[in-house]
Amino acid sequence: MRQVAVIGVGVTKFGRHERSCAELFAEASLDALTDADVGPGLIQGIYLGNVVGEAGERQLHMGPQVASSLGIPSVAATRFETACASSHAAFRHALFEIASGAADVLLVGGAERVLTMPTERATEVFAYASDAVFEQPAGLTFPGVFALIARAHMAKYGTTEEQMAHVAVKNHRHGTLNPKAQFRKEITLEQVLASAKVADPLKLYDCCPFSDGAAAVVIAAQDVARHSRKPVWVLGSAQAGDSMCLHDKRDLARALATERAAQAAYRQAGVGPRDVDVVELHDCFTIAEILATEGLGLVEPGSGGLAAEKGETSLGGRVPVNTSGGLKAKGHPIGATGAAQIAEIATQLRGEAGARQVEGARVGLTHTLGGNTATVLVSLFGREPR
Amino acid sequence: MRQVAVIGVGVTKFGRHERSCAELFAEASLDALTDADVGPGLIQGIYLGNVVGEAGERQLHMGPQVASSLGIPSVAATRFETACASSHAAFRHALFEIASGAADVLLVGGAERVLTMPTERATEVFAYASDAVFEQPAGLTFPGVFALIARAHMAKYGTTEEQMAHVAVKNHRHGTLNPKAQFRKEITLEQVLASAKVADPLKLYDCCPFSDGAAAVVIAAQDVARHSRKPVWVLGSAQAGDSMCLHDKRDLARALATERAAQAAYRQAGVGPRDVDVVELHDCFTIAEILATEGLGLVEPGSGGLAAEKGETSLGGRVPVNTSGGLKAKGHPIGATGAAQIAEIATQLRGEAGARQVEGARVGLTHTLGGNTATVLVSLFGREPR
Repeated sequence: MRQVAVIGVGVTKFGRHERSCAELFAEASLDALTDADVGPGLIQGIYLGNVVGEAGERQLHMGPQVASSLGIPSVAATRFETACASSHAAFRHALFEIASGAADVLLVGGAERVLTMPTERATEVFAYASDAVFEQPAGLTFPGVFALIARAHMAKYGTTEEQMAHVAVKNHRHGTLNPKAQFRKEITLEQVLASAKVADPLKLYDCCPFSDGAAAVVIAAQDVARHSRKPVWVLGSAQAGDSMCLHDKRDLARALATERAAQAAYRQAGVGPRDVDVVELHDCFTIAEILATEGLGLVEPGSGGLAAEKGETSLGGRVPVNTSGGLKAKGHPIGATGAAQIAEIATQLRGEAGARQVEGARVGLTHTLGGNTATVLVSLFGREPR
Repeated sequence: MRQVAVIGVGVTKFGRHERSCAELFAEASLDALTDADVGPGLIQGIYLGNVVGEAGERQLHMGPQVASSLGIPSVAATRFETACASSHAAFRHALFEIASGAADVLLVGGAERVLTMPTERATEVFAYASDAVFEQPAGLTFPGVFALIARAHMAKYGTTEEQMAHVAVKNHRHGTLNPKAQFRKEITLEQVLASAKVADPLKLYDCCPFSDGAAAVVIAAQDVARHSRKPVWVLGSAQAGDSMCLHDKRDLARALATERAAQAAYRQAGVGPRDVDVVELHDCFTIAEILATEGLGLVEPGSGGLAAEKGETSLGGRVPVNTSGGLKAKGHPIGATGAAQIAEIATQLRGEAGARQVEGARVGLTHTLGGNTATVLVSLFGREPR
């Protein structure tokens, strides 16, 4: 299969924006194209992640809209939606197009506007990513989903609310080092523990925010990438699913789809968890980071909370996780999140992450959840090709 | 590149349904799997087209939901949305995965429920596929879009309302031969011309209906397909775009994106318009069929109306178009339409179309529009591989 590399990245500031998804995506895309030193005319296809454009902007069919806004309306452009993992799924499908030989240079990313909606409406629309027959009528929203997961993990492994709080403190600390992050202020363990209950045992500071923003990457086949400034090679990329409904999942304290996707990605890449130097993973809630570090094999099953407490996943620790600030502090414009994670890992592997640089990082990993973990994407990246 | 074939097809009855998209998709999928003689356990990925699930069913993240409903929750499943062309786009992306060597057997299709919404709400939500900044605030809905296109075609080429009506009469006649069609009654030219104005010059019978339904196809790599009952080979598949907004298009009387996609698909397939024996194309409005026959090169530019009038595109004519009844009579469950067109062409090329069979059909074409023609997909199929 042809090798593929990320050759340019662009991310808007995350937070509140008064521009449309298409405009936000154009900003991120033009930054990515400039970074890649590629003109829009070389782009052969656009892969766009977006989740709630219908509710938030009354905008479907966003693919051709972003193509038009970039001045390349004749280019094939499609929207991908698999909840919060949308732009990571778009990325994986774009790899297939290049690997098949059908294209050499593609633009991949995502955009989302959520803060145009009242909080109650955003919470409702986000819940559409859970099952409309069994879960929504029960009043289950995502804080509730992850509260149930947290309770299961606490019961099975003795994970504590303090350990979860350590994840929030770490990611906020990392966020202060990222100029694009939505929150750039440190918080204390005490602040997290004293914050308002959202869904017991999760408190306000256990939860990522609603965010607007966009992210884009330019990817290219090996022959093109080889001539680019600092290509970051895709070593593997895999998607796995799990039961749509929480009540069908075998073990809430275990990240089964993450395990499946990670195993497939590691196999493709020919590397293992111990080879990974830097990780961006899906910390929509602090418990999600704990489960993901376990599912990805970065720590032993059940020890994700302890690893966070000990600082193993902090900048300077054994395996730094969410140097960008993660969804928790960088923000979570859902359709853009997967692409933003890839942009962060590419930046790290290029050695261009400034104050948050993981020294000598050679292999990086991104991990994105969709819904109540019914979709998981894992990709691996390296400074050298496979 | 590895060759790919359609090895199984399934389509629900189109019309009003009281089941969810996931349930409708399961029905179509199980029919397709049975037809392919493939168990769900062999499916390595699900490619789902759906457009208005958010508004119609409060359901996002439909990929894992359909995977769960088919009993294969661990399989990667993603939703594709590029307006009415969604499942045709899903199909093209699925081809890439097989061509890349990453998978051998995939399930592709679409599902939609529209009739749960009041007509006014459905019209509003469909209009989200046009631009939310420039077009929606002007009150432009799709009957209006295609009325403007019709006026441009009438002015440039002298196309008449009678010629458009011939398209409706033909597709209703074809629909009587399709047990799955939403409308199975013949209509007369006089009935079309006397029907209520929707958007001048388009009348009720110039417009396709709102529909619920699903369609699915199983596709496989050559090594698997070779052992299947009657593989239908994919000769080419291309997607092209055009400006998102109608006011940016160069010539409303010309199907520019259709021309682009068709040229690319013909080039891939190594065939031309004269080699095509049977066509399923996007007749959301009668004028759309006239433009498409021209853009696909089946008739001379400007002569699509005349060709319909002369019966060239009827069953028994020079190049039968929409033997299924088309969107006009078979129905248009938008996210399912592209896959349903592919199912019809596969059925024709297998010689299994019964009363609507095009005798000796060896090469078929499908064509799907998204929005106001800002997305176009064209695929070519053959009884023999490329």
